[in-house]
Amino acid sequence: MGFQKAPGTQDILPQQVEAWQIVEEKARDICRRFNFREIRTPMFEATELYQRGVGETTDIVEKEMYTFTDRGGRSVTLRPEGTAGAVRAYVENKIYGEPDVSKLYYIGPMFRYERQQAGRYRQFHQFGVEALGAVDPALDAEVIALGYTFYTEVGLKGVRVEINSVGTPEVRSIFRERLLAFLMPKRELLCKDCQSRIERNPLRVLDCKVDQAHFEGAPSILDSLDEECATHFEKLQSHLTGMGIPFSINPRLVRGLDYYTHTAFEYKAEGIGAIDTIGGGGRYNGLVADIGGPDQPGVGLGIGLERTIMLLQHQEAGQQSRGRLDVYLVGLGEAADQEVTKLLHGLRLRGISGERDYQGRKMKAQMKSADRLNVRFTAILGEDELAKGEIALKDMTTGQQRMVPLEQLADEFLNHLKGLDVK
Amino acid sequence: MGFQKAPGTQDILPQQVEAWQIVEEKARDICRRFNFREIRTPMFEATELYQRGVGETTDIVEKEMYTFTDRGGRSVTLRPEGTAGAVRAYVENKIYGEPDVSKLYYIGPMFRYERQQAGRYRQFHQFGVEALGAVDPALDAEVIALGYTFYTEVGLKGVRVEINSVGTPEVRSIFRERLLAFLMPKRELLCKDCQSRIERNPLRVLDCKVDQAHFEGAPSILDSLDEECATHFEKLQSHLTGMGIPFSINPRLVRGLDYYTHTAFEYKAEGIGAIDTIGGGGRYNGLVADIGGPDQPGVGLGIGLERTIMLLQHQEAGQQSRGRLDVYLVGLGEAADQEVTKLLHGLRLRGISGERDYQGRKMKAQMKSADRLNVRFTAILGEDELAKGEIALKDMTTGQQRMVPLEQLADEFLNHLKGLDVK
Repeated sequence: MGFQKAPGTQDILPQQVEAWQIVEEKARDICRRFNFREIRTPMFEATELYQRGVGETTDIVEKEMYTFTDRGGRSVTLRPEGTAGAVRAYVENKIYGEPDVSKLYYIGPMFRYERQQAGRYRQFHQFGVEALGAVDPALDAEVIALGYTFYTEVGLKGVRVEINSVGTPEVRSIFRERLLAFLMPKRELLCKDCQSRIERNPLRVLDCKVDQAHFEGAPSILDSLDEECATHFEKLQSHLTGMGIPFSINPRLVRGLDYYTHTAFEYKAEGIGAIDTIGGGGRYNGLVADIGGPDQPGVGLGIGLERTIMLLQHQEAGQQSRGRLDVYLVGLGEAADQEVTKLLHGLRLRGISGERDYQGRKMKAQMKSADRLNVRFTAILGEDELAKGEIALKDMTTGQQRMVPLEQLADEFLNHLKGLDVK
Repeated sequence: MGFQKAPGTQDILPQQVEAWQIVEEKARDICRRFNFREIRTPMFEATELYQRGVGETTDIVEKEMYTFTDRGGRSVTLRPEGTAGAVRAYVENKIYGEPDVSKLYYIGPMFRYERQQAGRYRQFHQFGVEALGAVDPALDAEVIALGYTFYTEVGLKGVRVEINSVGTPEVRSIFRERLLAFLMPKRELLCKDCQSRIERNPLRVLDCKVDQAHFEGAPSILDSLDEECATHFEKLQSHLTGMGIPFSINPRLVRGLDYYTHTAFEYKAEGIGAIDTIGGGGRYNGLVADIGGPDQPGVGLGIGLERTIMLLQHQEAGQQSRGRLDVYLVGLGEAADQEVTKLLHGLRLRGISGERDYQGRKMKAQMKSADRLNVRFTAILGEDELAKGEIALKDMTTGQQRMVPLEQLADEFLNHLKGLDVK
């Protein structure tokens, strides 16, 4: 009998993990350039934080949270998204007291108990950023540009940016009335989801994939924006244009969360068949106060790493070839065994990557391992070589082989590898 | 009202996170050299995996697990350690079918509901390695050397390695009788913990910090080793000596887990006051079969990252200075604002790290931000400069300032920074 991973979770195995490492390193490098700094918050938080910070009526809170009672009788929830925890940390640690805008990023697991389907995991991974403390639309534009730069630099092709303004709560309540006046007469024609959602959240109805045919002539939120909202949205666009970020305006874009104000945006890419949303975000000027903090504005984004990596592989993009191992040290016989241990450790301490045999295998089997590892060099140490204090060094690219004194092996390597890197 | 993190969890804030990044990068770099490859397993597993893989009578399983029932009615547990999950993945994904030894590593959060105390967290973080598929003591030695190299290269001083052989289950049951014959007459003299543990696990009694005075003349497990165990232990020592790893033998070292066979080891360092165990591991030849896999041997280690970082800070070791930001772009006036966005994005796309103002602040406040960020350069763009198509570039180290045409800014920077890196 064997154990299996929990349903909806995944193992990321060594041959897959390199794609993750490359994507994460790129995220970190871009955040360094954009001056976002990493923050790490716990995997679980008080359940109430998500009820308040994500919204009680959202699908996440209603149906998808991993909530449990800990040994101290507290209700805690595995984090279903990253913003609530980051904002909680920003408030609890009084980061808002710093004079500059707080630009934070995180990379890590999130948890939602979703229906199982291909490419959806109950433990999934997000790269997210949150910029707190300024209302400047230059900051919204920078966050959007950061995400776009990330997708571009990891090698994803055909990524489109869609933006919208969802206004302020006041603007939205005016728009809501106009929209209901348009939608209510058509109510019976709409899908079941939309019928149930129409009064609770009519803005999301416009985003429905099934009912688009009924929405021709629907009012646009952009016509309801007040001057402040309209100015913010115009400036956002000129910043994006200045940076050369291609975007289109989608006035029906609302996102699944209720807390956005002004800017909402999504990244889309051609997936396996349909156009897929691969990330998104928006401005949330009320959220910090909602969860008990000072009235500080914010803007952020979240990018799903599973989908990014899946699309990269679908497009066969991204350099995911494993770095070559420098050397395989073939040892033959009992006496060589100890010397291999010593030599290999010496190489590793000098920064060289290397491997050996641990199964007492013959020369041929060891050479096969070296082949599988695609090493740059093999070094062979048998009884004869050991007696002479030498080792046979073979360049696996050129096939050339020569004898090197044992004590010069590390220096030889470093010279060789330096030469290879220059080429 | 504000929310607080769950008791026993921590936020790792931007000013602290760099120490973590440095330590994790070092772990990854060493694993690359030692040819260990990363595996990522889920944050939670079926509860029974830990009951079987860690041991029903251990403190972890009896008292410390975060166990809950998911929405599908399954009992799952947040991983309290990394070995059981890694071994489960090794079996479930049939990694054992590969011809070479499987050398895996992981870095990530673990969860134990422990009593709250300074430096102990309920979500803590471990770097661990597992090498599966060979009984060669060279592999035990390599795992021990890997951990020692990690501590050394992150800059921790005074790390000591202690090793022991805990033999095979057969050896241990013979030793257990000899030990009980020694301990039982002294039973009344021992501490309460030891009195209750004496029959269940007499080997751990020898490790008690309170009762050491009563253990003089106690039998040593090393005298009970059979020939196979003794040979394994001797070879382990010559491999360690060959690599120059300083170690001492501690025949009372047993570790908290029951599954170890042959090699057990710990790393110790002077903490704040007492000598502290900062990591350890051992060989576990029965574990893979115990959790339903083929009869494959293994050896691994686990290193607590909280303790490593705390000790580094206590020793004031490790280079934790934040990398300098390349440039702060000071913009003055509405027209400059758009140009700053464009220029800064252009610099970032060329690999340069930079920051700007998002709060409409005056020159003086922006220059203060630049100081706080310890930038290498500031570049000032006012109405005059904009009209001339130039920007004032100031080297913050030398104080020199000169005018640069806007379109040459990125090239100037790359040349400058290249020069600085060479120095």
